[in-house]
Amino acid sequence: MPHTSLIFDCDPGVDDAIALFMAFASRDTLDLLGVTTVGGNVSAALTVRNARMIREIAGREDVPVIAGAQQPLLRPPIDAGHFHGASGLGDLKIFDPVAPVTPGHAANFIVDTVMSRPAGTVTLAATGPMTNLALAMRLEPALCSRIGRVVAMGGARREGGNITASAEYNIYADPHAADIVARSGCPLVMIGLDATHQVRSTPDRIAVIEGLGTPQAQAVATLLAFANRTEKALGTGGASPMHDPCVIAYILSPHLFKTVPCTFGIETGSPLTLGHTAVELRVPDSAEVHVRWTVDADADGFFNLLTELLSPPPGRDL
Amino acid sequence: MPHTSLIFDCDPGVDDAIALFMAFASRDTLDLLGVTTVGGNVSAALTVRNARMIREIAGREDVPVIAGAQQPLLRPPIDAGHFHGASGLGDLKIFDPVAPVTPGHAANFIVDTVMSRPAGTVTLAATGPMTNLALAMRLEPALCSRIGRVVAMGGARREGGNITASAEYNIYADPHAADIVARSGCPLVMIGLDATHQVRSTPDRIAVIEGLGTPQAQAVATLLAFANRTEKALGTGGASPMHDPCVIAYILSPHLFKTVPCTFGIETGSPLTLGHTAVELRVPDSAEVHVRWTVDADADGFFNLLTELLSPPPGRDL
Amino acid sequence: MPHTSLIFDCDPGVDDAIALFMAFASRDTLDLLGVTTVGGNVSAALTVRNARMIREIAGREDVPVIAGAQQPLLRPPIDAGHFHGASGLGDLKIFDPVAPVTPGHAANFIVDTVMSRPAGTVTLAATGPMTNLALAMRLEPALCSRIGRVVAMGGARREGGNITASAEYNIYADPHAADIVARSGCPLVMIGLDATHQVRSTPDRIAVIEGLGTPQAQAVATLLAFANRTEKALGTGGASPMHDPCVIAYILSPHLFKTVPCTFGIETGSPLTLGHTAVELRVPDSAEVHVRWTVDADADGFFNLLTELLSPPPGRDL
Amino acid sequence: MPHTSLIFDCDPGVDDAIALFMAFASRDTLDLLGVTTVGGNVSAALTVRNARMIREIAGREDVPVIAGAQQPLLRPPIDAGHFHGASGLGDLKIFDPVAPVTPGHAANFIVDTVMSRPAGTVTLAATGPMTNLALAMRLEPALCSRIGRVVAMGGARREGGNITASAEYNIYADPHAADIVARSGCPLVMIGLDATHQVRSTPDRIAVIEGLGTPQAQAVATLLAFANRTEKALGTGGASPMHDPCVIAYILSPHLFKTVPCTFGIETGSPLTLGHTAVELRVPDSAEVHVRWTVDADADGFFNLLTELLSPPPGRDL
Repeated sequence: MPHTSLIFDCDPGVDDAIALFMAFASRDTLDLLGVTTVGGNVSAALTVRNARMIREIAGREDVPVIAGAQQPLLRPPIDAGHFHGASGLGDLKIFDPVAPVTPGHAANFIVDTVMSRPAGTVTLAATGPMTNLALAMRLEPALCSRIGRVVAMGGARREGGNITASAEYNIYADPHAADIVARSGCPLVMIGLDATHQVRSTPDRIAVIEGLGTPQAQAVATLLAFANRTEKALGTGGASPMHDPCVIAYILSPHLFKTVPCTFGIETGSPLTLGHTAVELRVPDSAEVHVRWTVDADADGFFNLLTELLSPPPGRDL
Repeated sequence: MPHTSLIFDCDPGVDDAIALFMAFASRDTLDLLGVTTVGGNVSAALTVRNARMIREIAGREDVPVIAGAQQPLLRPPIDAGHFHGASGLGDLKIFDPVAPVTPGHAANFIVDTVMSRPAGTVTLAATGPMTNLALAMRLEPALCSRIGRVVAMGGARREGGNITASAEYNIYADPHAADIVARSGCPLVMIGLDATHQVRSTPDRIAVIEGLGTPQAQAVATLLAFANRTEKALGTGGASPMHDPCVIAYILSPHLFKTVPCTFGIETGSPLTLGHTAVELRVPDSAEVHVRWTVDADADGFFNLLTELLSPPPGRDL
Repeated sequence: MPHTSLIFDCDPGVDDAIALFMAFASRDTLDLLGVTTVGGNVSAALTVRNARMIREIAGREDVPVIAGAQQPLLRPPIDAGHFHGASGLGDLKIFDPVAPVTPGHAANFIVDTVMSRPAGTVTLAATGPMTNLALAMRLEPALCSRIGRVVAMGGARREGGNITASAEYNIYADPHAADIVARSGCPLVMIGLDATHQVRSTPDRIAVIEGLGTPQAQAVATLLAFANRTEKALGTGGASPMHDPCVIAYILSPHLFKTVPCTFGIETGSPLTLGHTAVELRVPDSAEVHVRWTVDADADGFFNLLTELLSPPPGRDL
Repeated sequence: MPHTSLIFDCDPGVDDAIALFMAFASRDTLDLLGVTTVGGNVSAALTVRNARMIREIAGREDVPVIAGAQQPLLRPPIDAGHFHGASGLGDLKIFDPVAPVTPGHAANFIVDTVMSRPAGTVTLAATGPMTNLALAMRLEPALCSRIGRVVAMGGARREGGNITASAEYNIYADPHAADIVARSGCPLVMIGLDATHQVRSTPDRIAVIEGLGTPQAQAVATLLAFANRTEKALGTGGASPMHDPCVIAYILSPHLFKTVPCTFGIETGSPLTLGHTAVELRVPDSAEVHVRWTVDADADGFFNLLTELLSPPPGRDL
């Protein structure tokens, strides 16, 4: 019986797509209430199409996909197509998914879904700019006290930035939305570059996945190979970090990660440091802290989990 | 036959209430599609109650009232209860209005209403913080191209600020929302302190209204007398400016105001100048300008209009 | 016997030049300890040359001229040559002045001069960016308690800006320096656009000066005619405001101006409002206020004073 | 024969004091033109006294000590007495040094010294807030093209901040001054926490120094023991990093450090990230880069150097 009710807000995106495959594969543990999409790595039109594609490959048309914000709250959109390819899914073969998008706005879906369920029972996974979640919090101020927790990919402390010298992409892409979420008081687990840079898709790990033989595993192997080629071409190393998949891995297997309490500020004003996460780990014992920062990740454990999720079901021939 | 379809977004508030009476009285010229409320002068719970009270006094239960944002997009709420009294309606006798609030969020109401009507046909009047309008624009990016125009009370150029040295209250209360609206490209008429300070409720003007004998006129006279006492007590003069009512007056009788094209920036970052409106009237002839700034107002013309709207209908005994 | 010891810090500049003529002509009332120059309206190389030229025309080689800062503290220089001509002195005939510049830096001159005289006895007139004065305050923290007062041209409250929508040139050109001076606690009289826009060189006023027959009067008339042509060409009106000369007029005849206490902030961070002066006149009676803001100026009184200063000495044939 | 002419600008400070001992001991390699002091770790009055104390212990009264800025350019002073003790020198026995301070301001000393020597021949070591250097650059714009290079302790990239979540103390204490230096175009080697945290005074390293038997070694051992106790008490670890001494070590033995070209921005506006150094190592090959960032330090090499400098001269009995 699924133990976690989840809304997955994402902007697929190569690594979001892998995270989606992980979530779709977790029928036994996750009650996936919906996948909401946001413009980010690529345009909002593409992220919702991509989410529907992954859903179709995963055979999870039972899960609604709802489109959301087309642009950040205040700043102009920042495309990351140079990392994710023109389609957002690397060189995965693009097709027109059959099952349609569910009408309505992602922010309203989040509000309606969370408010109609018992308080504290819904987890939000956020692997893109947090625009939808921020809009939802402003549309329904009581939302925050009803959400169980938010687990989000974003930010950097020891690792500097990836999109600028001092900022990580997801936060930089909509720092004001992230600020709304961070200051909401909602329980928040941040998985930033400090952790995700520890979890890298080395060639041998990709080879294992490629050998699994399922369509999902094949798609993931294709995405990972693309990501590694991109990293190599950009000179940032040849084994791509598993940014967004860490969020789903954390929800499924929190013991793979070490988190510590922190105070957490987001730069929303200065052009130089826009989107920088000021993560302070020197927190007084007495402080009420609702944000945890991820300092370590178990890479082998992560890839074991990923491999397991992409394996054929036991007793079923491929 | 009404010539203007209007959504009126407000935070009543003493002067919003007078503006509401004007809008409700304009059956012949305004098709009032809805009144949406926002937290501002007083809390969101009070502004929606107050809007329903004014609706009941005006006998316009045919117009839906929809509640909206309870707090600004990013900054903490700034109450202006010292100007509007604890209830938000000065010393008007408070009662529990019969007709209920219409369910849903003001931002969704604005989106649904504007998107379901022909492009360019709906005017938005905004007399509070522009949070609802900004949320609506982010929920539906096509909204902006469908709105006919926004007429908003806010900002200051020659007059300095009223809430801080450099900022006017409505903009200061949610500068980020105002910034979203100002940069949306939507046609926008800004009526700021430069104009509203020219339109003051002198005792003789109040006396005329008091003599009209309608319940609406009586309520307005009570509100104006309260506002004048407040201005006197705060040492800001004894004849209160007609801030929000100028918005409805402009929509009804634009010839009472002189507007000029401008470029229009809003300070969203610096604490010192937060909410300041950088209004530049030296605009190159070739520039595409979608914002107009109000430089002058005809105070006598305004009060003639207000008096007419609050008068008993011709041929009807009171 | 001169009653006021003065250091005059300036960036001539057309209107600085007129102010210099006024100061040089005030032998009976001003003990002019030195003229210090700063890059501003034109480059630092030109402002010091121009100060020496005016000194020569005025026959005041007894007054030292000392060059100072070539650039603002932090921001890049902002030239105002479009207002002052390429030379900085409009179409005044440029020549090579005989008396040299006095060695050393203006900031050191200010420190040494003020610190060697009795506390409270030296007035600083500042008609350009306040870079020299700010550097002096940082070189000698005790300076502030020794300066009698600073009288500075800069800022705007009711008049908006002249260099941007919200900022006046002198403050905008070095907002950080102005901020240092404003927060120093030193007694400060600010004469901004609110006052200087009231004092305009109409053609009849220029005609009076032109008729005086002295070389100084001739030079001033030439400068004023140039300024008026510039204002006309830029579409900002045909009678130029006497910005910098108001500073010397205030020092000579304070009764020509109405000043009120204020709190005074300067925007140093935001690009939109950089250099804006947040002038708050609603000051609690109990507040310790060391800045006064000039709200009104007597234009006729000013031109009478200017005319008198440029007139031939009594009993002397021209 | 000394190969490097050096001005050492510092705010002693426990670790500045150790750096001073290193510089004073390097008679053979450094031509120490002067030690200039600035308010920082402790007040300006204490830093100049402390520099004179260290000079006396080191027996280097031939080197002038000149006092400088008492406060940062723009922001209020930030004391770090909790790290350095009330005197600034931990529990070193305080005495009144005999040799006096040299008159004049440090900024003027820097200008005069550098400008009177051949271009490119003077190195500036900066181990405190860079206020003096920034003032000197503004007093003399040609200074920058005459300085050989600046080697400064400050900033952080991988290590987060020490004074706030995102800023290192020296930069945070006067970010505007650091910004002036960083943007001056002057060759600049930045040694930040990324490197200095690699060089720690473990107990065995202190024991070696303690055994050297010279008064300087004894003083350094006392300072290091104090620093370690402080680190332990503050919970930041028990072996203190050799922040400032790394600057002198770099000048003496650059091969102990690995530096890479970078672009380098300093946050001067936002309160959250004030003083953060945005260090971007992904620099296009074609870029003209004048700042180098230190990524690695050889801790053993450093302590060998320190030990050697504090040892008794060969052939001399203690």
